[in-house]
Amino acid sequence: MIIVMKDHASAEQIAGVVTQVEAQGFRVHLSQGEERTIIGVIGDERPVEVGLFEVLDGVERTVPILKPYKLASREMHPADTLVPLDGLKVGGPRLALIAGPCSVESRSQILETAQAVKEAGATALRGGAYKPRTSPYAFQGLGEAGLELLVEARNLTGLPIVTEAMSEDQVDIVARYADVIQIGARNMQNYPLLNKVGKSGRTVLLKRGMMSTIEELLMAAEYILAQGNTRVMLCERGIRTFEKATRNTTDINAIPVLKRQTHLPVILDPSHGTGKVDYVAAVAKAGVAAGADGLMIEVHSHPEKALSDGGQSLKPEAFAKLVKDIRRIAEAVDREV
Amino acid sequence: MIIVMKDHASAEQIAGVVTQVEAQGFRVHLSQGEERTIIGVIGDERPVEVGLFEVLDGVERTVPILKPYKLASREMHPADTLVPLDGLKVGGPRLALIAGPCSVESRSQILETAQAVKEAGATALRGGAYKPRTSPYAFQGLGEAGLELLVEARNLTGLPIVTEAMSEDQVDIVARYADVIQIGARNMQNYPLLNKVGKSGRTVLLKRGMMSTIEELLMAAEYILAQGNTRVMLCERGIRTFEKATRNTTDINAIPVLKRQTHLPVILDPSHGTGKVDYVAAVAKAGVAAGADGLMIEVHSHPEKALSDGGQSLKPEAFAKLVKDIRRIAEAVDREV
Amino acid sequence: MIIVMKDHASAEQIAGVVTQVEAQGFRVHLSQGEERTIIGVIGDERPVEVGLFEVLDGVERTVPILKPYKLASREMHPADTLVPLDGLKVGGPRLALIAGPCSVESRSQILETAQAVKEAGATALRGGAYKPRTSPYAFQGLGEAGLELLVEARNLTGLPIVTEAMSEDQVDIVARYADVIQIGARNMQNYPLLNKVGKSGRTVLLKRGMMSTIEELLMAAEYILAQGNTRVMLCERGIRTFEKATRNTTDINAIPVLKRQTHLPVILDPSHGTGKVDYVAAVAKAGVAAGADGLMIEVHSHPEKALSDGGQSLKPEAFAKLVKDIRRIAEAVDREV
Amino acid sequence: MIIVMKDHASAEQIAGVVTQVEAQGFRVHLSQGEERTIIGVIGDERPVEVGLFEVLDGVERTVPILKPYKLASREMHPADTLVPLDGLKVGGPRLALIAGPCSVESRSQILETAQAVKEAGATALRGGAYKPRTSPYAFQGLGEAGLELLVEARNLTGLPIVTEAMSEDQVDIVARYADVIQIGARNMQNYPLLNKVGKSGRTVLLKRGMMSTIEELLMAAEYILAQGNTRVMLCERGIRTFEKATRNTTDINAIPVLKRQTHLPVILDPSHGTGKVDYVAAVAKAGVAAGADGLMIEVHSHPEKALSDGGQSLKPEAFAKLVKDIRRIAEAVDREV
Repeated sequence: MIIVMKDHASAEQIAGVVTQVEAQGFRVHLSQGEERTIIGVIGDERPVEVGLFEVLDGVERTVPILKPYKLASREMHPADTLVPLDGLKVGGPRLALIAGPCSVESRSQILETAQAVKEAGATALRGGAYKPRTSPYAFQGLGEAGLELLVEARNLTGLPIVTEAMSEDQVDIVARYADVIQIGARNMQNYPLLNKVGKSGRTVLLKRGMMSTIEELLMAAEYILAQGNTRVMLCERGIRTFEKATRNTTDINAIPVLKRQTHLPVILDPSHGTGKVDYVAAVAKAGVAAGADGLMIEVHSHPEKALSDGGQSLKPEAFAKLVKDIRRIAEAVDREV
Repeated sequence: MIIVMKDHASAEQIAGVVTQVEAQGFRVHLSQGEERTIIGVIGDERPVEVGLFEVLDGVERTVPILKPYKLASREMHPADTLVPLDGLKVGGPRLALIAGPCSVESRSQILETAQAVKEAGATALRGGAYKPRTSPYAFQGLGEAGLELLVEARNLTGLPIVTEAMSEDQVDIVARYADVIQIGARNMQNYPLLNKVGKSGRTVLLKRGMMSTIEELLMAAEYILAQGNTRVMLCERGIRTFEKATRNTTDINAIPVLKRQTHLPVILDPSHGTGKVDYVAAVAKAGVAAGADGLMIEVHSHPEKALSDGGQSLKPEAFAKLVKDIRRIAEAVDREV
Repeated sequence: MIIVMKDHASAEQIAGVVTQVEAQGFRVHLSQGEERTIIGVIGDERPVEVGLFEVLDGVERTVPILKPYKLASREMHPADTLVPLDGLKVGGPRLALIAGPCSVESRSQILETAQAVKEAGATALRGGAYKPRTSPYAFQGLGEAGLELLVEARNLTGLPIVTEAMSEDQVDIVARYADVIQIGARNMQNYPLLNKVGKSGRTVLLKRGMMSTIEELLMAAEYILAQGNTRVMLCERGIRTFEKATRNTTDINAIPVLKRQTHLPVILDPSHGTGKVDYVAAVAKAGVAAGADGLMIEVHSHPEKALSDGGQSLKPEAFAKLVKDIRRIAEAVDREV
Repeated sequence: MIIVMKDHASAEQIAGVVTQVEAQGFRVHLSQGEERTIIGVIGDERPVEVGLFEVLDGVERTVPILKPYKLASREMHPADTLVPLDGLKVGGPRLALIAGPCSVESRSQILETAQAVKEAGATALRGGAYKPRTSPYAFQGLGEAGLELLVEARNLTGLPIVTEAMSEDQVDIVARYADVIQIGARNMQNYPLLNKVGKSGRTVLLKRGMMSTIEELLMAAEYILAQGNTRVMLCERGIRTFEKATRNTTDINAIPVLKRQTHLPVILDPSHGTGKVDYVAAVAKAGVAAGADGLMIEVHSHPEKALSDGGQSLKPEAFAKLVKDIRRIAEAVDREV
């Protein structure tokens, strides 16, 4: 960390800061510029509260130098982490294609959709049993009955299951049924939940919060990794901006940024990233071209009957067509489907 | 809701939408413009999933007409809801002044700060025992020991306690000690938690998510109200924008907007809203002038030793000065401290 | 447009709005819901000021139905507009690759860079002679001397020139030298400038403002088209969001949205979209996969000596490698380089 | 500036950066931490292009230490600048109240409104003759005829005139008629225009761009000041965020931030800041409480007939009421109206 002093900081104020820095067990490196004095703080700054220094007399601001995460960092762990998903190693050359409905709604819906995405080339089935909904009056998911239907779909198709746990209380039951526990965007900073899935040891798909920076996403992953669970896939699913033509703004930049900053695999969700079925295919292709390790796509056998997110769900035929297109892009970047 | 058809929508497509609308139990009102056909959906649209209509052939988009919340709405409940906070009625003429440290850190810290804010004129004490921290390496709060210290501070000063519950599992224990359960910004859309505090019957201070719209804040309140708990105070605490000079951007507009849209009282938190101690007083005064029913302000007896948020915490003397300034503004808008 | 009345709007208020709507020459279509009355305004609403209706007693809000642009709209002009750029038809199967330095800095710099990008496969040369700089103390461009150097580079390489005009006063001189006049992000809503380049008849590359919506970009294009100039290319160059890991957030969604909403060709600028040389290639590939009609990329023969934007400029070798990668992606989406 | 090296930067890379820094005329201060080397750049960094360093091998990022503006900075100029506006000194104890219609529309409209705001207590008259409109089909202002009507209104009421120039070509004519030249939000970074109003010597009201940071606003002011013109008032008018309940988000934090960073007076425009007449008064009061030196408010004698911005314009009676309320707030912060 460096501490930038105000322009007229007195020798006494500088000495006060130095004392405080050393009291925290750091070494100090002082640099007197023409207009500003800068105090370098030498040591592992990660666990330190910057406010300790920012309130001292004469301090203008502090600038962190080290990244606040360690376990998630590629610096500390240069090799790609490969996360097993049934036969597939996510993060390796073959792309993960996670497809299925937003919510599990009925036996016929989930079985029909599961078979369709399997035939089209999906490598995992998604489907929500517990649904975080903005409105208390909206469909909230089938709960455990939904999990049972997912298992039936897995038995039928062989596809591993990705489904969301919304609270620490749901982790055990979801872990009992699912192959991958999804942490939704609204829960990216639900720390009790992150700790619990960390302890569960189960593979986690961690979605970026719609209001979270890439650094915060990596800090959320750090919570899970700090519990000893390294089976973490990150998922970019669009951020909230001023643009209203789409439901969210897919942060395509996040893909190369994450691939550089972390060793964890990165999945793109173009369904939430755009929120409109018309734009899903273009953005899915963009994600693969940018280096994503997989895609998560909403597919519904009958979107016009969907109890949630119908407007962004592909029909099975459209998904099958997209997989073909994705295969061509994948080959153009030396990946495979 | 209205459904806007594409410009070349066929008679067949229009008929298809009408059928689907009627199948959902609504009446239809058709309006043929020169360039567009519009289908009005008559009935209570709140529980309806718009995706049902958006995926139909020929549909361009849907526009909701009714607000998605009911119980939180001033239309349904024109009179101000007054939330009791010890002797005070929050939402009435007298302002709530909730002050105290970000985290409870030690016995001396909380007792000293509690006495100082009491003397300065605070009407409630804030202090976190369970802390949501971006980093797993940062201080996470004292837990139940912190709650016990808060009770000791209440016994000493008579100030009611406001403290956060981060998950449904913490609601019971927090409710046992605290007068008001705070739902933090990161948990504004943690629906299991909202349901649980709704059922608890305890007074709730619901903070706006840093990238949540005002409508989403009211939908979160709706979850609590739907459980029969009407003791809800809303709290504007700054939103995330592109501006970097401050930690968040205080959405001062939100105060008159909320006062118009809902009957619930509105508190402003200028400490998180600005994130810098230098700007807290100006924004606190602005909040009162704009019509806020109270303020929530971080005060720490020794900010330079704070384990969290020191950089935005006022010293007790500065808080005492601010209360005097606030009193003058309050009088200028026919309120009191 | 539809006008949504407040929930307790009186018959008199409704009549007042109807009178005002009809006074503006529109027909009215009234729809009485259970909780709200809606007044449909039938006719071409584009030139109408919505404030006229929003201030009337009893009105809650207005909702536009028609898109505010006409000439830029694909509805009015379904076929793709192909914009000639030397031999190339931008918007057709072959991609435009516009490359070169941020600023023209010296004869050797621009000639060297121009030759390098030509050899690598570029189809046009970019380079700024007039530079909009945040700081008055920064290099402001060589002005007309820079334009002359660009012409020399064109003579040497045969590449058409794309360069910016920052004000209406610069349009004539830029038009004298350049093949394409660039309107920069900061000037997207500089209406006198838009009118002037519209009248110039010269091909225009219109960059999206960093906090402008897609609709506003199309309205800016509409200004140019309204002057009879249809040679307009749109350029997505990243928007401003809360994310700080990159200089801007490339709005990849904007590519399929624009391709659907308008007939004009769409170029992606991944250099400004990311602001970091490390991420340019990934996002360039994403843009082509998403359907962009071309790319605009900063290349500098010696980025470490650049007077502007060195941090986002590719070296010629990196650009040559990127063109090869782009060719593969292009083929995977049935385009060519 | 400090330059942060990558974690495994070699001695050779560090030496390379040092050479480049010294070649630019700076002194170097090296600091070897455990995980990172930091290179301090000693000297006036303001005119330096950071890209020069960011592209060097082994560099992770650069961090500016000095503020990029000088003339606008309170550090360089601690005393408040008072800008004369007719008899008033803006920035002194008495608040500037600039009121009037968005656009000048007709003789009766502007004279009637001018008299009404004068009677209510306004100290200057606003009104646009040249209007930047998103749509080419919207009313674009009366041009010079509008300026003549403003002069007639000034003759009638004695109020000085504030009106916008949209391009450098309009500066001379606007300067001929107006007391204060307004630079609109869309033109905050129109550098030829800033230079021209700088040279004009006329008082300038510089509005913050809706997408601009506070630092960029100060850099825009720096352009004007660098031309020797110190009669600059800054105007916060709301920024663009994800919130949709209001047209813009008033950045109330910007008021104390600007008052601390700069010596120039700060005006708040709550009409654009909210975009809805219902919220203008609350936010106007907030601005005064936060320390604004004045307000700019849209008032129209007949908002329901306004050709622009009717929805955010107060009627004269509402403005008169607001001035009374403002007076009370002003007194509560030791200011006057």
